[in-house]
Amino acid sequence: MAEHEVILAGEEPQFFEGVEKLLEVWFTREDGRIDNCNLRKIPRHQLVSLLKIVRCEIISSVQNDQLDSYVLSESSMFVSQRRFILKTCGTTTPLQCLEPLLLLVTKYAGFDAVEDVYYSRKNYKRPELQQSPHCNFEQEVAVLDSFFKDGAAYCLGSVNRDCWYLYTLHPLRGPRRGTTEPDQTLEIMMTDLDPEIMSIFTREECSSAAEATLRSGIDKLLPDMIIDDYLFEPCGYSMNGISKTEGCYMTIHITPEPEFSYVSFESNVPLESYKEVIMRVVKTFRPGKFVLAVFANKTSVAAKAPRELEKEASFGDWLRHDVHYCRFKSYDLTYALYSKFPS
Amino acid sequence: MAEHEVILAGEEPQFFEGVEKLLEVWFTREDGRIDNCNLRKIPRHQLVSLLKIVRCEIISSVQNDQLDSYVLSESSMFVSQRRFILKTCGTTTPLQCLEPLLLLVTKYAGFDAVEDVYYSRKNYKRPELQQSPHCNFEQEVAVLDSFFKDGAAYCLGSVNRDCWYLYTLHPLRGPRRGTTEPDQTLEIMMTDLDPEIMSIFTREECSSAAEATLRSGIDKLLPDMIIDDYLFEPCGYSMNGISKTEGCYMTIHITPEPEFSYVSFESNVPLESYKEVIMRVVKTFRPGKFVLAVFANKTSVAAKAPRELEKEASFGDWLRHDVHYCRFKSYDLTYALYSKFPS
Repeated sequence: MAEHEVILAGEEPQFFEGVEKLLEVWFTREDGRIDNCNLRKIPRHQLVSLLKIVRCEIISSVQNDQLDSYVLSESSMFVSQRRFILKTCGTTTPLQCLEPLLLLVTKYAGFDAVEDVYYSRKNYKRPELQQSPHCNFEQEVAVLDSFFKDGAAYCLGSVNRDCWYLYTLHPLRGPRRGTTEPDQTLEIMMTDLDPEIMSIFTREECSSAAEATLRSGIDKLLPDMIIDDYLFEPCGYSMNGISKTEGCYMTIHITPEPEFSYVSFESNVPLESYKEVIMRVVKTFRPGKFVLAVFANKTSVAAKAPRELEKEASFGDWLRHDVHYCRFKSYDLTYALYSKFPS
Repeated sequence: MAEHEVILAGEEPQFFEGVEKLLEVWFTREDGRIDNCNLRKIPRHQLVSLLKIVRCEIISSVQNDQLDSYVLSESSMFVSQRRFILKTCGTTTPLQCLEPLLLLVTKYAGFDAVEDVYYSRKNYKRPELQQSPHCNFEQEVAVLDSFFKDGAAYCLGSVNRDCWYLYTLHPLRGPRRGTTEPDQTLEIMMTDLDPEIMSIFTREECSSAAEATLRSGIDKLLPDMIIDDYLFEPCGYSMNGISKTEGCYMTIHITPEPEFSYVSFESNVPLESYKEVIMRVVKTFRPGKFVLAVFANKTSVAAKAPRELEKEASFGDWLRHDVHYCRFKSYDLTYALYSKFPS
């Protein structure tokens, strides 16, 4: 969420693209000796410079012993030992930072190889407003292909309606390099949200981020999270949560304007099933439609979650319209689109 | 397969796009009274005119009591009471015939509604050689969207490598109109084929289509088919098979030139499992890679075949690289890519 323009009486609010671009890169070393390597050694002023290229800035940060969490002017960044996550909305340009990021990693963090890459996003509401190379997925893929071999690009869902793009490394031959560290991610991308709930995320209704977090029930979505939240002027909301006991995170970003409302929820909290979390999230925000993307690798406790969701035809009043179940070398993935009935 | 140019000694053969565009349209009536309706009432000279628009022509035909089967200069056409199938390769333009097709159907066949549409194709080897609106999938979708509401467009597989495009009707609300007639389709699209096998499909090696059919083993792929086969000059092969006892069909098209070899197999033969047929087909042609697409609706005996194939990680020496399992309103679909190992 970026700072939104002040809405003048009788004027349409200026459009804001809530849909984020999500870049997640896992680093390793060719010789496997990663004990002394750490992305968190990259100095903060270098991260600030990196984010300038992306066209956003840090507005708040918290950390625990495994994870640095940043709330940005446009969404969030999470840095752990070998995983870099940059999630940015609006007209930011995260793929422009790939080259400088790889240089910083070599210089400060000690890694010499990329183990895996995930670049993903929902279809934009207004793609014509994006900056190069983010105007279309083909452009984005061309940039990624210039850095990585064995990259495979997918479009899940309907190309001419709601869809979700994914680029990841998917070598044709042989097993993937690297460890089998458990990993899982749940993403929920919601549109056409309940205006009454969205009004919570305005300065008119709430005087602080903490008030919005409590009144909306965001604090109850996942237990035991240190919450770093931010309420924008005049509206808009971002929060990062980092686990008090584990290295996991959650993040929520809210564009509340009724004309282009959008809410994203993301977490890597390890659960055998995500059904209850998903139900809590959609009951909290009441979207007209939502897209799910659930990844899990074989060593994750969530290994069977993509399969479980592939079989889930509804969540309460939300009926499934599209579902794709995909298998990659080490991850299973379910993409699904649900919409409220009656709408 | 179109007639191929004569290859002069020392010259590269002229490129030919084997990849077909496949249009399948099911017709019905708003009042459900289809007993007196029949696509086979459309006069042959009208079909000939229709195919002129598509840039191909009829070179052979056979029929039984349920089905008219046509071998075309570029692939095949099948017309039954309410299902129209047009599969054309090269630089043909099947979507240009949609409007005249709908007019012919109204005038001669008595239907007044489209029940379902499937337009699909693999990615072209050389998209830049295609004619409008077939230069890219977006163009094709725009044409289809101008005729049909509730059309959903998908790209299965990897956008920047091997993929398969599909457009079908997928209304957001309510059940699909129409019957629950059992239906199923198996498609196998093969590339990088064994040159020794491909040489069978040249005039140099075989003096007749019947000889090529027997020597390759095509006659043994599915039992009890009336075979209408054609061997092009100097190379290339097409065959349609129609069942002696049922209304089902099979069709094979072969572009044998090693530089751009391509073979497609398609059938709607109803089987509980397609594993044996797939194994027979890939052993017959020995592709370096192949793409599978298997559709079945709930009333089909093949209803569980998409699920079975989603779980099938290999066929003999061919290992799976990509798989997507999708659910539509009335059909399940599995897309998968396999490649030979070691290649």
